[in-house]
Amino acid sequence: MPRVSQDHLDARRRQILDGARVCFARYGYEGATVRRLEEATGLSRGAIFHHFRDKESLFLALAEDDAVSMADVVARQGLVQVMRDLLSEGSDHPADWLGTRLEVSRRLRTDPEFRTRWAQRSEQLTAATRQRLLRQRDAGKLRDDVDVDVLTSFLELVLEGLVSHLAMGLPAGHLTPVLDLVEETVRRHRAHAAPA
Amino acid sequence: MPRVSQDHLDARRRQILDGARVCFARYGYEGATVRRLEEATGLSRGAIFHHFRDKESLFLALAEDDAVSMADVVARQGLVQVMRDLLSEGSDHPADWLGTRLEVSRRLRTDPEFRTRWAQRSEQLTAATRQRLLRQRDAGKLRDDVDVDVLTSFLELVLEGLVSHLAMGLPAGHLTPVLDLVEETVRRHRAHAAPA
Repeated sequence: MPRVSQDHLDARRRQILDGARVCFARYGYEGATVRRLEEATGLSRGAIFHHFRDKESLFLALAEDDAVSMADVVARQGLVQVMRDLLSEGSDHPADWLGTRLEVSRRLRTDPEFRTRWAQRSEQLTAATRQRLLRQRDAGKLRDDVDVDVLTSFLELVLEGLVSHLAMGLPAGHLTPVLDLVEETVRRHRAHAAPA
Repeated sequence: MPRVSQDHLDARRRQILDGARVCFARYGYEGATVRRLEEATGLSRGAIFHHFRDKESLFLALAEDDAVSMADVVARQGLVQVMRDLLSEGSDHPADWLGTRLEVSRRLRTDPEFRTRWAQRSEQLTAATRQRLLRQRDAGKLRDDVDVDVLTSFLELVLEGLVSHLAMGLPAGHLTPVLDLVEETVRRHRAHAAPA
């Protein structure tokens, strides 16, 4: 019998990622020291770096973890739903999620090496969004006068704006009808189309 | 004859703001030390702080300066045009402008006191956007089935996304048709409205 089961390893990895998410969101990448990562995860540096080679690898794993979760929701419910979830969720979870996302944004600005590493990982969300739109188009639900790639980029741009808006702590109560408008924009028919 | 004319004061103030813009964009707010501000402006700390009480006041003046310029373009040409300008301009100017804007975003996230100070200043752009849309609506160019406040928030959200996108150094060559779609979304008629 192995001393450490796969389930145990997975649970430990999850524990590290969850703690690190809070830690990076609160202190930023540079401010998330090994000491703070130990506190946030409740584990020793030895345990943490048994699972992740270094802080950079841990951060990338976390960002990738979030991207996979989002891609999963996108595939099932669409990117607009991801945005609606961001608006409706309680204050704890989205703040952490947003923190990671904003930290990715900041590092993309300031760290060209990180930009290269991240490029491969960020395509998942685009691919999931595009796939979902193609299925919607085949089902006759999507407008067909605008290229699917343009609609994909449009939705991603709005998501980026929403993430930035929420991260700045600006009021968001008025944004539900804005998301309705975004959703309507990619759909086949416009509500106020000229009457036949 | 006064020793220092108003024109000279204005030119000096402009010189400080232009240098500071580059400095804040490059080093961030905390990294823009007095020494670096001296280098970037070509002026002594005495000259700089003769015009601005402290670094915080200088940064706020700069951010407000940018907001006024944007509000001016918005009043004349609309917020979509501001976005198109962002896409088409050379790499020097927008980078600086973006740097200030991103630094505002970052401080809004991390500094509640700054958030309060900034709140009054950020309303200019919203007001200019809203005024422009109201005029467009009166001229029969705007769709009338969606509230002007919703259309204003929609355009601001896309701008926020575009700023974030560009600041991250992500490719933007494909975004022109996305802005066409955004513009069409607030206009009266949709190109592919069902034929009568």
